[in-house]
Amino acid sequence: MNADLRRERESASFHTERLTHLLDGGPEKTRRRREIETLALNDPELQHKEVNFLTCSERYDVAVKKSSLMVRKIQEHAISNPEEIMSFKRYVHRGRPEPLDLHLGMFLPTILNQATPEQQDRFFIPAWNLQIIGTYAQTEMGHGSFIRGLETTATYDPSTQEFVLNSPTVTSIKWWPGGLGKTSNHAIVLAQLYTQGQLRGLHAFIVPIREMGTHKPLPGVVVGDIGPKFGFDDVDNGFLKLENVRVPRENMLMRYAKVLPDGTYMKPPSDKLTYGTMVFIRSMIVGESARALSQACTIAIRYSAVRHQSELKPGAPEPQILDYQTQQYKLFPLLATAYAFCFVGNFMRDMYHRITGDMNDGDYSQLPELHSLSAGLKAFTTWVASTGIEECRMACGGHGYSRCSGLPDIYVTFTPTCTYEGENTVMMLQTARYLFKSYTRAKSGQRLSGTVSYLNDLCNHIQPQQVAGRPPLANLDNVTRLVEAYKLRAANLVEGAVQSYHVELGCRINKEEAWNSTAIDLVRASGAHCHYVVVKLFAAKLSEITDGSIHNVLCTLFRLYALHGISKNSGDFLHAGIFNDHQISQVHQCVKELLAAVRPNAVALVDAFDYPDAILSSVLGRYDGNVYEHMFEWAKRSPLNQNEVHESFHKYLKPLQSKL
Amino acid sequence: MNADLRRERESASFHTERLTHLLDGGPEKTRRRREIETLALNDPELQHKEVNFLTCSERYDVAVKKSSLMVRKIQEHAISNPEEIMSFKRYVHRGRPEPLDLHLGMFLPTILNQATPEQQDRFFIPAWNLQIIGTYAQTEMGHGSFIRGLETTATYDPSTQEFVLNSPTVTSIKWWPGGLGKTSNHAIVLAQLYTQGQLRGLHAFIVPIREMGTHKPLPGVVVGDIGPKFGFDDVDNGFLKLENVRVPRENMLMRYAKVLPDGTYMKPPSDKLTYGTMVFIRSMIVGESARALSQACTIAIRYSAVRHQSELKPGAPEPQILDYQTQQYKLFPLLATAYAFCFVGNFMRDMYHRITGDMNDGDYSQLPELHSLSAGLKAFTTWVASTGIEECRMACGGHGYSRCSGLPDIYVTFTPTCTYEGENTVMMLQTARYLFKSYTRAKSGQRLSGTVSYLNDLCNHIQPQQVAGRPPLANLDNVTRLVEAYKLRAANLVEGAVQSYHVELGCRINKEEAWNSTAIDLVRASGAHCHYVVVKLFAAKLSEITDGSIHNVLCTLFRLYALHGISKNSGDFLHAGIFNDHQISQVHQCVKELLAAVRPNAVALVDAFDYPDAILSSVLGRYDGNVYEHMFEWAKRSPLNQNEVHESFHKYLKPLQSKL
Repeated sequence: MNADLRRERESASFHTERLTHLLDGGPEKTRRRREIETLALNDPELQHKEVNFLTCSERYDVAVKKSSLMVRKIQEHAISNPEEIMSFKRYVHRGRPEPLDLHLGMFLPTILNQATPEQQDRFFIPAWNLQIIGTYAQTEMGHGSFIRGLETTATYDPSTQEFVLNSPTVTSIKWWPGGLGKTSNHAIVLAQLYTQGQLRGLHAFIVPIREMGTHKPLPGVVVGDIGPKFGFDDVDNGFLKLENVRVPRENMLMRYAKVLPDGTYMKPPSDKLTYGTMVFIRSMIVGESARALSQACTIAIRYSAVRHQSELKPGAPEPQILDYQTQQYKLFPLLATAYAFCFVGNFMRDMYHRITGDMNDGDYSQLPELHSLSAGLKAFTTWVASTGIEECRMACGGHGYSRCSGLPDIYVTFTPTCTYEGENTVMMLQTARYLFKSYTRAKSGQRLSGTVSYLNDLCNHIQPQQVAGRPPLANLDNVTRLVEAYKLRAANLVEGAVQSYHVELGCRINKEEAWNSTAIDLVRASGAHCHYVVVKLFAAKLSEITDGSIHNVLCTLFRLYALHGISKNSGDFLHAGIFNDHQISQVHQCVKELLAAVRPNAVALVDAFDYPDAILSSVLGRYDGNVYEHMFEWAKRSPLNQNEVHESFHKYLKPLQSKL
Repeated sequence: MNADLRRERESASFHTERLTHLLDGGPEKTRRRREIETLALNDPELQHKEVNFLTCSERYDVAVKKSSLMVRKIQEHAISNPEEIMSFKRYVHRGRPEPLDLHLGMFLPTILNQATPEQQDRFFIPAWNLQIIGTYAQTEMGHGSFIRGLETTATYDPSTQEFVLNSPTVTSIKWWPGGLGKTSNHAIVLAQLYTQGQLRGLHAFIVPIREMGTHKPLPGVVVGDIGPKFGFDDVDNGFLKLENVRVPRENMLMRYAKVLPDGTYMKPPSDKLTYGTMVFIRSMIVGESARALSQACTIAIRYSAVRHQSELKPGAPEPQILDYQTQQYKLFPLLATAYAFCFVGNFMRDMYHRITGDMNDGDYSQLPELHSLSAGLKAFTTWVASTGIEECRMACGGHGYSRCSGLPDIYVTFTPTCTYEGENTVMMLQTARYLFKSYTRAKSGQRLSGTVSYLNDLCNHIQPQQVAGRPPLANLDNVTRLVEAYKLRAANLVEGAVQSYHVELGCRINKEEAWNSTAIDLVRASGAHCHYVVVKLFAAKLSEITDGSIHNVLCTLFRLYALHGISKNSGDFLHAGIFNDHQISQVHQCVKELLAAVRPNAVALVDAFDYPDAILSSVLGRYDGNVYEHMFEWAKRSPLNQNEVHESFHKYLKPLQSKL
């Protein structure tokens, strides 16, 4: 092992393994996670060439191979817990998306949730066995987040008891669904239902798109891959154009809404039922933010401990770049953020399970809070993590730009989370709508609960401005006061946005225009609300920790997270009178001290995330720190080195040279 | 043409073509630029397949082909002005880096500047004719920005009058030089010179690396491609390991330093002479920032005018997404920034030419200012543009993530500017050192000139805090006051950083440690200084504009740039007492009004950048706005659609399905 990394690890002030247990939720969970990890990573059938050396067709080929093996192995290893299946899948594909993602994550669950028992009998087992391979075709070329605007039509023909599906315009072509281009032979198609001459809104239809056996597109189906993307190179995101494609009446998913043989339409009992999957996926994305950012931090911090450059003291050997304050300032706040997001990710997962439990018991009261929080935190964490990954890459200098660093892959795989499952700005505005309504309710005397309960105080005339008169903080150690500060900032910005809306409403014709003219303020308020929730949840986690040395190091990270956030948004805190000038100067100074305090534990803190080398896929982030030798080996195996002289020399350069 | 874009263009308040002339520097320059553009873009020999559909070996092949044709065409078209050669090259390669970049941009200029007349005779003409293809091998695996740490050795052997070159460690392997992997047959190698048993520091040697005629690596030369990167897919960035490679004494570049036949070393007369190239390239990168960001803005703003989504008014048709305030808030400040950077880029180019003119006349007095400003503005503009390109990409939703948007390519091509030619944080600290020295000089009574002259006032006890007492701005229209505000912020942060340094020096052993412990403050101060320079230069440009309608629209952009920057950094302005709470609220409000003011001219403002479709290479940014049809056509031509059924179906899925 690299001597620097060994020394870093030996001098850590806490027991790394115990922190890993804390992140996993206990030693037994760590053990089981590693067991599944080993099943996937050590399986000789699931090995593959470095994907960065493959063409896109080869990458897709490898991915299909591993996906089909994976389905068999899940059965062989008798992995049945859905979360464990997800983990196994992640390890098999090394964290990358794969062609069966929508089959497993959308097609099968939609069958389970929206199909009638008869439909489940027809489709579920064949799909589970990969005879039917499905995808979920919702997004069209012209419509993403605004699903009411989707244009695909399904017109019921009672004479044959069939639906006739059509893509009436170019913009109505289904676009983006994963696995649609080449892999799937079925698609759940979201289409505007017409029956008895009337539009009945969006419904889901199971549409066969490729012939069983030959896999050729069926008549009337124009299907293919949408072409190369920034990332997602292993997935055949596809397009689908339907030209008078007929499916039997029984292929509409009819658990809730129904079309009778004569074309009579029966409405679903509630439209809340479609909330579920969306909220689930958004909640899970918060955990993905934690994972992606913590992986990037692991790579950048280990490399910064191995890399020596320039000089700090004249005549002394070149220091580790992790000793530069500017490097610490780039990486340690992100490390603190990664920890914060891990705790928030676990909280969202648990909250989701708790509230869906309540909903199964008929209690829908918490659904708006879950809906709003999952939307806001999805946006907040993915924006921060996406930017943070690139900061980690740039903190690795030139080598971060090489694919061998693993960082470009992490970025391009992660960054679409800012767009899919609800575009982030749209998500922030949904959260804002909840904050707006909550504020209005509190103002009218109702008592709020949950994460918005701080709006009660606001409406009881405890104004944040009152804080300005308080004496400066003796020190900025106080966890409760820091949470309080974020709460006041959120309250101030929510109130400001509401007031701004009412001013606009005075000048505009309608509510929608006033809302649009306040949108920037609303997004800011949502961001501050989410930031508060993250700080609050991180603080809450601290109180649960019994191990003293781990408590200490996480307290340091918490303070860094909170104070760095104040320093970066000092305008908000000054403007609201939460801190005065002198305190803000203290905050800046404190951040510098905290960087120095994190420094001795930085490597151990990323080790605790416990990512095996095979998952990081990074020469720079190797656990053993033997970076340079492996970079050289990696390069030697790359495609352009397969021949000593590239054919282009003979084709273009030699003829040119010979002419002279 | 798309009806939305036509309407946008018809309703612009200014004459687009005249703004293009302003950006180019006059109608004649626009004409000549377009002439060169047409020569490259319309040449049937210089056409190529969509590069996103090619493998990396194919992309390299196409690039070598075009590069070798390009050298011939430059001669055919008698293009001799260096800036016009650079433009032609850019159009031939559609803005992408290419395998001969270092040959043309580093190898040839280094021969011209550092070779003796005899060496120029031997190398220049063969290199101009591409018999000798060279690269510039400085960076090693273990050392980038800190060139003193380079490890490659060149030991003089007087018995044979040769230098013996060696890569003594893995970290000393040359790494990253463009064109080194496959294309070059020579390299200028930077190595530590040893002669007569003594280390004489870094010197440059011309080293043949591949055999003429066969192009095979010469004995002792281990050379190859460093493998796939985030971008730069057309360039063979390479590695070079030297094992006792001997070159004749005459291959050391000896215009300044010399080694005599007996091994006697003669020092160069000055070390300022190496400044030139570095400063030139950094100055040019500022212009690259403008180009990359303005291209990204063109794509995102045109697409936002074509894309309709969701609803603003109940029952009304879906609005253009450019009508959403949040979309305007993402794109218009970047548009204003792109204009600001265009002016700053032109300023840096002119400043470089002016000061190198002075230097040729023996006047070096302005060199430190040029050196500091090019370093700081390189870092400032590349960071902002790099982040901004990604913001543009995300503002295009899902389709921004497709390679057909052109945005991923712009990003991965541009983002390395943050790292190469001086890592950005290192650059900011160099600027900080100049600011620190200037402040100290002013404090000691010397009068400063140039961009740092505001530090004179500071040291004359005109404290920024005094501004706090001023009455609120009646309106935020005043250009001079806005420049003044940025000046005060910079002054405040420079002074704060200097004070912070002295406090640290009191606690630390040496200056280097105190400097490192103040590094965050120093980088902040540099950033504020650069921001001030950009605002100042933009304001200065306004006063030169005679066309009233163009003056109006650029004033709006200037105010948006300046006020948005204040809004985003409100903590700095509040903390320094430059604005009070009420004024900051006004600033936020003003930004919203300015977005609405920019809105009607947004499309015309990006049209004025005058990028032909072939340069944007973007389906979303097409001039005619026919986005969706072309997206479909693009996808159909992509590699995975070459066969209806992918081979992986027959290899993996079909066998699995048949077993059941």
